[in-house]
Amino acid sequence: MNIKLIVEYDGTNYCGWQNQDNGLAVQMAIEQAIAKTEGERIALHGAGRTDAGVHAQGMCANFHPHMAIPPEKWAMVLNTRLPQDIRIVSSCQAPEEFHARFDAVGKHYRYTIFHRSVASALDSRRSWHIFGPLDTAHMQQQARLLEGTHDFIGFVASSGKKNATVKTIYRSALTCRGQYLYYDVWGSGFLYNMVRIIAGTLVDMGRGKLPGVTMEDVLASRHRLGAGMTAPAQGLCLMEVFYEEAVLKNQLAHLDFDLQ
Amino acid sequence: MNIKLIVEYDGTNYCGWQNQDNGLAVQMAIEQAIAKTEGERIALHGAGRTDAGVHAQGMCANFHPHMAIPPEKWAMVLNTRLPQDIRIVSSCQAPEEFHARFDAVGKHYRYTIFHRSVASALDSRRSWHIFGPLDTAHMQQQARLLEGTHDFIGFVASSGKKNATVKTIYRSALTCRGQYLYYDVWGSGFLYNMVRIIAGTLVDMGRGKLPGVTMEDVLASRHRLGAGMTAPAQGLCLMEVFYEEAVLKNQLAHLDFDLQ
Repeated sequence: MNIKLIVEYDGTNYCGWQNQDNGLAVQMAIEQAIAKTEGERIALHGAGRTDAGVHAQGMCANFHPHMAIPPEKWAMVLNTRLPQDIRIVSSCQAPEEFHARFDAVGKHYRYTIFHRSVASALDSRRSWHIFGPLDTAHMQQQARLLEGTHDFIGFVASSGKKNATVKTIYRSALTCRGQYLYYDVWGSGFLYNMVRIIAGTLVDMGRGKLPGVTMEDVLASRHRLGAGMTAPAQGLCLMEVFYEEAVLKNQLAHLDFDLQ
Repeated sequence: MNIKLIVEYDGTNYCGWQNQDNGLAVQMAIEQAIAKTEGERIALHGAGRTDAGVHAQGMCANFHPHMAIPPEKWAMVLNTRLPQDIRIVSSCQAPEEFHARFDAVGKHYRYTIFHRSVASALDSRRSWHIFGPLDTAHMQQQARLLEGTHDFIGFVASSGKKNATVKTIYRSALTCRGQYLYYDVWGSGFLYNMVRIIAGTLVDMGRGKLPGVTMEDVLASRHRLGAGMTAPAQGLCLMEVFYEEAVLKNQLAHLDFDLQ
């Protein structure tokens, strides 16, 4: 049996998705919940890594249990063994060969900016506080320039891997709602820190810190130093992982209205 | 000098707004920040109490400092001395006789319900998790029946004061947005636990636990037992305090579209 999980988590208290030496990972917390049920450790495969402090509404993961628990019951079984800041939203049976990471064809990330002179008392765990003037119209225009198939090597952390840096961005858009700015991006794949570097670059552009520089220039520079700062982890959320391009493109077709 | 503050806070870690014996109050935290600045304790007057765990986006408070700090600088001065979950959004000079509690003519509260089979990993500090079927159309209809001037003695906690229980509700409306239900209420004043009892009664009605009972029946019963359960504190947020009826009514006039 192969079980597919949709996982929501508040990343504040975790060292990221992936198991590491420095603190509890979300993956480990779920593997421990599975082990408490199965009596032995079973590997959980996530759709990708998220950094320490990054959140998820729709992380996808899969594992092969031995116990004959009905697929849709796994969510409830694991939730009783997990802390409140990790929830299995749903569980279902997947084809035996399904792999959450290798089969992913796209992801949707959202980066949330809170734009006010005073920081938020209520949302500081889930947004990046920016104060001072921001040219949001310019940011919106620049965000759209990333759409298409490009080499994103200029947007990868200097410590990140530099292979397979050509990615397709289906939609890259900034939406303003009151004091919140939402940067939403749907792509075929993302490099290490890529969304956070894009968000930081957009904010630098909005603040006028990169005068005359466009996203096209950053892409052409092919160097991390061509881009702006790396936005902090807590503003980032993995919204959804896609396994069929048709599903991704259908979602985008229906979202067009909202993002204008 | 009389300084008026707009205060935002995450009530999770506080025993409520008002100073009490059992834990740190938001009022006390701000009074301590003022005392650190002034070198002596100065009383802070809030627009009203909020219970332990209840949040605020727009609590209003005032105090009379001795120091000649420019009115609009008080926000920054106090924020440097306050924990991150309490923020002074703004400060300004008020007329000498202004009192945040006695001069309030209305308030806007929001109660947030998260409606999904699985609890939220991301918003559990700020919403009430409800699972199972809810007749939201019925809840929306019943919410509107509270509008007008009524004796709300049936919606006051049995331990609460029973004088001056006639209040005017300007707008009482439930909005559905995806997995969230927002109950928004604007009124001349609110009794102890009144919004939480309304929210709990609406959910009981939505679940079919009060068959045949309408909000008009609960009002007519004039007894706490006529209403439903008290919704938990963490879903409640004081959104705004009004000091001019014209401002309140102007806001409602512009909100009509959103709440339909």
